[in-house]
Amino acid sequence: MIYEEKTMKSEKIYEGKIINLKLDTVELPDQKYTKREIVEHPGAVAIVPITADNELVLVKQFRKAIEEAIIEIPAGKLEHGEDPASCAVRELKEETGFTAEKIQYVFQFYTSPGFSNEKMHLFVATGLAEGTAEPENDEYIEIIKIKLDNLLNMINNGEITDSKSIIGILMANNIINSKQE
Amino acid sequence: MIYEEKTMKSEKIYEGKIINLKLDTVELPDQKYTKREIVEHPGAVAIVPITADNELVLVKQFRKAIEEAIIEIPAGKLEHGEDPASCAVRELKEETGFTAEKIQYVFQFYTSPGFSNEKMHLFVATGLAEGTAEPENDEYIEIIKIKLDNLLNMINNGEITDSKSIIGILMANNIINSKQE
Repeated sequence: MIYEEKTMKSEKIYEGKIINLKLDTVELPDQKYTKREIVEHPGAVAIVPITADNELVLVKQFRKAIEEAIIEIPAGKLEHGEDPASCAVRELKEETGFTAEKIQYVFQFYTSPGFSNEKMHLFVATGLAEGTAEPENDEYIEIIKIKLDNLLNMINNGEITDSKSIIGILMANNIINSKQE
Repeated sequence: MIYEEKTMKSEKIYEGKIINLKLDTVELPDQKYTKREIVEHPGAVAIVPITADNELVLVKQFRKAIEEAIIEIPAGKLEHGEDPASCAVRELKEETGFTAEKIQYVFQFYTSPGFSNEKMHLFVATGLAEGTAEPENDEYIEIIKIKLDNLLNMINNGEITDSKSIIGILMANNIINSKQE
């Protein structure tokens, strides 16, 4: 049985546009106490769009947190009350312009459960049709198509450095391989 | 060419034990401005310890941010100035008690580059020898060994929900398969 930390006090530090920060005082065994810094996030979806030629549709954008432009699978925050599958359709269209005949749920995961509750819902999109992207006001995104085989090399070479994208690419590879077997 | 966001102003919101929060005002094209909420993290290592029987040594612990006890690969924060490979040796020993003949670097990734600079350095540990764990004061950890094949099922079933652990397990599988080919 794993010890569950009871909240003794919860202090709101910051409430923002995307994230909130709170500082919880929790009880540990033997009546000891410690503090947990927690970043609250509304949750997000990530989509692996696979073309008929086994290319993935990816986005390259500048990420201020790491001061770097990186290649990622399309993704975006859940709006309040939004269903993850609807969010996946919306974000794929907004970020890349693509629509999909089929959007299939893969699984969900926490990006960094040590300090944040951000949950990422992963989808695979197939039967793609190209359209016009509709990025948000503060998004400047380049759309790139890359062969799955190249992406696997790019993960090993350290050219793909985003956790959701690594997971999405590795799962796309597993899904395609299992269909070919 | 991807647009790079120039910092016009940077406000420190919180400086904590593990994370800091800052609010940057950045310049977008056409002289527009927006704010970016950024969680600074010292970086971390994660280790995939593989036994001679292709079992992985995992840890189960309560994560306050998600109010849940989850199974993860061993991991821990970098101490100030600490080399990631040394940190991997230290965290493997502290969390699981295991020492390894070989600790091999795999790659590094960002857990959530949309709002945090947390960088995770991934290692595979082999040639394992069991010892006594030395958890930190506020860590209550259960050690579990699970067969790699079962772990792949647990990812698909949603029983493994931590991004670094999903990446570590999928890479361990690729490494083992490539050795067997």
